[in-house]
Amino acid sequence: MIQITVIQIDNYGPWTVTPNPRRENDLQALQSRLYEDLNLMFGMYGGLVFYTRFDNLIAITNGISLEVHKKIQESVRNRYPFTISMAIASAETPYEAQKLATKTLQEYGSAQDSNRREVLDVANELVNGYVQIAHIDINNVTGTFTDVYSAYDTYLKVNEVKLLLMKEFLKYEALLFFIGGDNFMAPSNGMNEEDYIKIFDNINKKLNLDLKAGVGIGKSAEEAANLADIGLEEIRGKRVDKNICILKNDKFFKEVLRKGKSCGL
Amino acid sequence: MIQITVIQIDNYGPWTVTPNPRRENDLQALQSRLYEDLNLMFGMYGGLVFYTRFDNLIAITNGISLEVHKKIQESVRNRYPFTISMAIASAETPYEAQKLATKTLQEYGSAQDSNRREVLDVANELVNGYVQIAHIDINNVTGTFTDVYSAYDTYLKVNEVKLLLMKEFLKYEALLFFIGGDNFMAPSNGMNEEDYIKIFDNINKKLNLDLKAGVGIGKSAEEAANLADIGLEEIRGKRVDKNICILKNDKFFKEVLRKGKSCGL
Amino acid sequence: MIQITVIQIDNYGPWTVTPNPRRENDLQALQSRLYEDLNLMFGMYGGLVFYTRFDNLIAITNGISLEVHKKIQESVRNRYPFTISMAIASAETPYEAQKLATKTLQEYGSAQDSNRREVLDVANELVNGYVQIAHIDINNVTGTFTDVYSAYDTYLKVNEVKLLLMKEFLKYEALLFFIGGDNFMAPSNGMNEEDYIKIFDNINKKLNLDLKAGVGIGKSAEEAANLADIGLEEIRGKRVDKNICILKNDKFFKEVLRKGKSCGL
Amino acid sequence: MIQITVIQIDNYGPWTVTPNPRRENDLQALQSRLYEDLNLMFGMYGGLVFYTRFDNLIAITNGISLEVHKKIQESVRNRYPFTISMAIASAETPYEAQKLATKTLQEYGSAQDSNRREVLDVANELVNGYVQIAHIDINNVTGTFTDVYSAYDTYLKVNEVKLLLMKEFLKYEALLFFIGGDNFMAPSNGMNEEDYIKIFDNINKKLNLDLKAGVGIGKSAEEAANLADIGLEEIRGKRVDKNICILKNDKFFKEVLRKGKSCGL
Ligand SMILES: Nc1nc2c(ncn2[C@@H]2O[C@H](COP(=O)(O)OP(=O)(O)OP(=O)(O)O)[C@@H](O)[C@H]2O)c(=O)[nH]1
Ligand SMILES: Nc1nc2c(ncn2[C@@H]2O[C@H](COP(=O)(O)OP(=O)(O)OP(=O)(O)O)[C@@H](O)[C@H]2O)c(=O)[nH]1
Ligand SMILES: Nc1nc2c(ncn2[C@@H]2O[C@H](COP(=O)(O)OP(=O)(O)OP(=O)(O)O)[C@@H](O)[C@H]2O)c(=O)[nH]1
Ligand SMILES: Nc1nc2c(ncn2[C@@H]2O[C@H](COP(=O)(O)OP(=O)(O)OP(=O)(O)O)[C@@H](O)[C@H]2O)c(=O)[nH]1
Ligand SMILES: [Ca+2]
Ligand SMILES: [Ca+2]
Ligand SMILES: [Ca+2]
Ligand SMILES: [Ca+2]
Repeated sequence: MIQITVIQIDNYGPWTVTPNPRRENDLQALQSRLYEDLNLMFGMYGGLVFYTRFDNLIAITNGISLEVHKKIQESVRNRYPFTISMAIASAETPYEAQKLATKTLQEYGSAQDSNRREVLDVANELVNGYVQIAHIDINNVTGTFTDVYSAYDTYLKVNEVKLLLMKEFLKYEALLFFIGGDNFMAPSNGMNEEDYIKIFDNINKKLNLDLKAGVGIGKSAEEAANLADIGLEEIRGKRVDKNICILKNDKFFKEVLRKGKSCGL
Repeated sequence: MIQITVIQIDNYGPWTVTPNPRRENDLQALQSRLYEDLNLMFGMYGGLVFYTRFDNLIAITNGISLEVHKKIQESVRNRYPFTISMAIASAETPYEAQKLATKTLQEYGSAQDSNRREVLDVANELVNGYVQIAHIDINNVTGTFTDVYSAYDTYLKVNEVKLLLMKEFLKYEALLFFIGGDNFMAPSNGMNEEDYIKIFDNINKKLNLDLKAGVGIGKSAEEAANLADIGLEEIRGKRVDKNICILKNDKFFKEVLRKGKSCGL
Repeated sequence: MIQITVIQIDNYGPWTVTPNPRRENDLQALQSRLYEDLNLMFGMYGGLVFYTRFDNLIAITNGISLEVHKKIQESVRNRYPFTISMAIASAETPYEAQKLATKTLQEYGSAQDSNRREVLDVANELVNGYVQIAHIDINNVTGTFTDVYSAYDTYLKVNEVKLLLMKEFLKYEALLFFIGGDNFMAPSNGMNEEDYIKIFDNINKKLNLDLKAGVGIGKSAEEAANLADIGLEEIRGKRVDKNICILKNDKFFKEVLRKGKSCGL
Repeated sequence: MIQITVIQIDNYGPWTVTPNPRRENDLQALQSRLYEDLNLMFGMYGGLVFYTRFDNLIAITNGISLEVHKKIQESVRNRYPFTISMAIASAETPYEAQKLATKTLQEYGSAQDSNRREVLDVANELVNGYVQIAHIDINNVTGTFTDVYSAYDTYLKVNEVKLLLMKEFLKYEALLFFIGGDNFMAPSNGMNEEDYIKIFDNINKKLNLDLKAGVGIGKSAEEAANLADIGLEEIRGKRVDKNICILKNDKFFKEVLRKGKSCGL
């Protein structure tokens, strides 16, 4: 079970243009600050936040209590010109969890309902569960893109990869987010090695570039992300002979992967 | 002529994994802080920065001197664990300008050359010129997506719109960036009303949703963005009868638009 | 027992002038950002940080584990151009605790020893214990100073109050910090109502102004500070007939105050 | 003539306790962020801000236009849960300038008048003028305090030095601010070498420690601070044989110092 929190700025659209459209520089600074803050605060309890649309963010929050959520909600209220609503849900797959969470939020009213403020609710239950994250990276993006093509052409290519990855992962009810550079993170509970390989083959055929992924399985998003990073370094260091390296925290999980062969075994 | 600055974190990839992979929460916080800071600092001189890939950013910097660039570069060196390189270029179209800027940067060495640090150079010339920005927005995203579909489904839809817009705008040598929510900004010097309408029609046919855009033409990115915002409000307020409203700062520009009919005229 | 963490930027002095003196604006921005970050991160676990000298900070950290300290230390390393060292100690009084913590830090070498990096150690033991904080406030600073005297004259007056308070509180082995406006916070485990009253009388005689204080006793700095704030509001609301209101969290403490009469009792 | 801007958070006191006292961690984070932001924004135009009481800040703003002030005020409105008021004044001495600025602000109503919002006014005139800043530093604070005494004892000592310096400088209508570590900055237009030496002798007699100061004279706070820093390094490098080194930017100033002997001449 993965626990997902959907975060939404309350009635943000109208605020951005009241009484006059606000300076875009300020909105960009404000949104990226919120993203940063949420990552620092949830991160203190092992959570990980993705910026998504900036006004609607998705976080992995396994093991994080309602009380901690409340504190974060209050801290935003105390330091920002707006408030945020949050709904938490858990499910077997990340897609299902965020869907349940969104539904709970929607039941309280529209994102632009000026009476809906600081919702904090749980769709089903808070879980410890586990988190599986794939940290996906383009091989040699520096040599084949950054140093060769224009900044925007590389950016466009990264966006093509991103959209294709989003669609491929969705088939497995997994999510996919861009985390900067040539890197993506896919919360993907339940997927196995073959699943990732199949996706990367598809991308390779369509876009003619190679991907690799470290996959981590841990009790929190942070632990999973750390393990995924180590897996990626195993591949970079050629200590494994494929483009996927799955690592799990054995102290906490015995039987997680469907067909689980841990990297290097 | 539009002036574009390409900003690149020096040798960032290796740093993120030395001596061990760094915590993803911290990298996300660090990257979004850099983006925020750059927007605040360039914004003080009318510039506007887009986060692009976070390690490679694109800024519109008409009217901003080399000296101001130098100060920003120094401020990053003083407050971050890394340094940044920057190259500035001007051209008739945003695409051409960023291409020239990237080329200048590449001539100094690889993005991952540990000896290339704090490049600051100008490809051709610093200009005042003018900036044309379209602020593009999905009609009623709240009622048709945010309040109805799951957070991730809406996000996926927004990404489809984004990629399609990127490709369409590129035909005009214009750039396109996502700025949060259901909003995009397209630096698009030289485009006219018909061009935008054609693009929105294409999107509508393929993705079945309606777009609107305020377009601003000003002497700086900030002025252009402000005018674009006002144009968008003109459309929202139904004070124009189409989905495009182009506004220019007449104090500075007489003949800018190719076939320029100003919004409401 | 109160638990105190002394935080020190490693080898900061030399860094500020290498290779040339760094821009003061940047140093101020950097230092205040560090202070902010530390407060947000320790705050997620109920801790409270005082900026002290900015390069040497003092935090109340009851109940905060070594592991959390380590995470914060690592997060600073990942996002700042410098690293920090930390030593933790507990004692009956705040003064004694910070003294022990400082001593532990000093044993590892000079603050400007370039080989001493990222010390993290515990002087004696990590405790839950309890925290007593007085939130001290000048009566009607707005009417008698801010609106009447110049900004600097008021500031000077506040500094006189501060230094006198520091010296008075030290007699009880309590610490005192300025927290903005006309507000001070005194970590002051073991002090009782009479002690505070005596200090305020002294200040009144010497500086001719009235102080009030809410005092909170809780299991964390955050809880103590919250209770202190409530106490202050009790006084402001004239629901108590003196200038001191001590509140404790009875769920956790039975017999804490030496002569403890709880506010309103 | 020095130009000073007094900045005040509007109606901040009541806000901090409405509807309930806000979490102190958040207030500290919020206040230090404001300070950071103001320094970055004013700094882009050569200004320098001192945190003073955090809710009332003092900035040196020579050469900074009303338009830039307005942009900063708007940016705070767009990103913070409160607004700020500002008044600008110029005078021969820093003390006089801040006094005039405060008076202008006070004429608009109380700091806690809920109807007074976003005042922006000029007491007399905006000037280019010049800025004289002394960057004062304790000799070998590391060896004699930081590495020897407890963190709080050193802090107390620094506060004693600070208050004494404030009073001494006030005799010359100069201001003094703590900027972290063992450092102080004194905006001190019109003072000469002998004046500083006399003050340092007084401090030495009373507190038994040695001070040194680089003094910079420039057309902006930033330029003055930079020159002061260089002066300080001249003293540290023993390239001057006294504890004061005054440097001025000769490109802009011919006759500034009353008895001006430039350092090293
Ligand atoms: N968010 C995030 N970004 C990273 C991380 N590692 C690398 N990046 C980004 O990815 C960019 C490219 O770095 P690399 O992937 O090391 O470079 P490469 O040329 O593709 O090399 P290989 O991946 O080793 O083939 C960097 O500039 C970073 O922006 C990471 O752990 N997290
Ligand atoms: N960056 C940025 N985002 C904005 C701006 N205005 C709105 N948004 C974002 O767009 C989201 C949706 O707001 P709106 O576009 O007003 O909502 P809508 O339902 O599509 O309504 P209409 O566009 O009026 O049809 C908001 O939550 C914001 O995230 C803006 O000026 N800048
Ligand atoms: N850090 C912090 N500062 C506060 C808090 N409450 C008030 N302040 C500061 O104190 C300043 C003065 O506010 P008040 O103390 O409410 O004003 P006052 O005129 O002294 O009124 P009384 O204290 O009610 O007599 C504000 O501008 C804030 O800077 C708080 O809880 N924390
Ligand atoms: N804000 C600020 N602080 C500084 C600067 N230089 C040093 N500091 C602070 O001062 C502290 C002590 O550093 P130094 O003054 O170099 O150390 P010292 O032991 O007194 O050595 P000397 O001054 O060379 O005798 C550092 O930890 C910093 O906090 C500066 O330029 N600006
Ligand atoms: Ca890569
Ligand atoms: Ca919209
Ligand atoms: Ca008060
Ligand atoms: Ca010193």
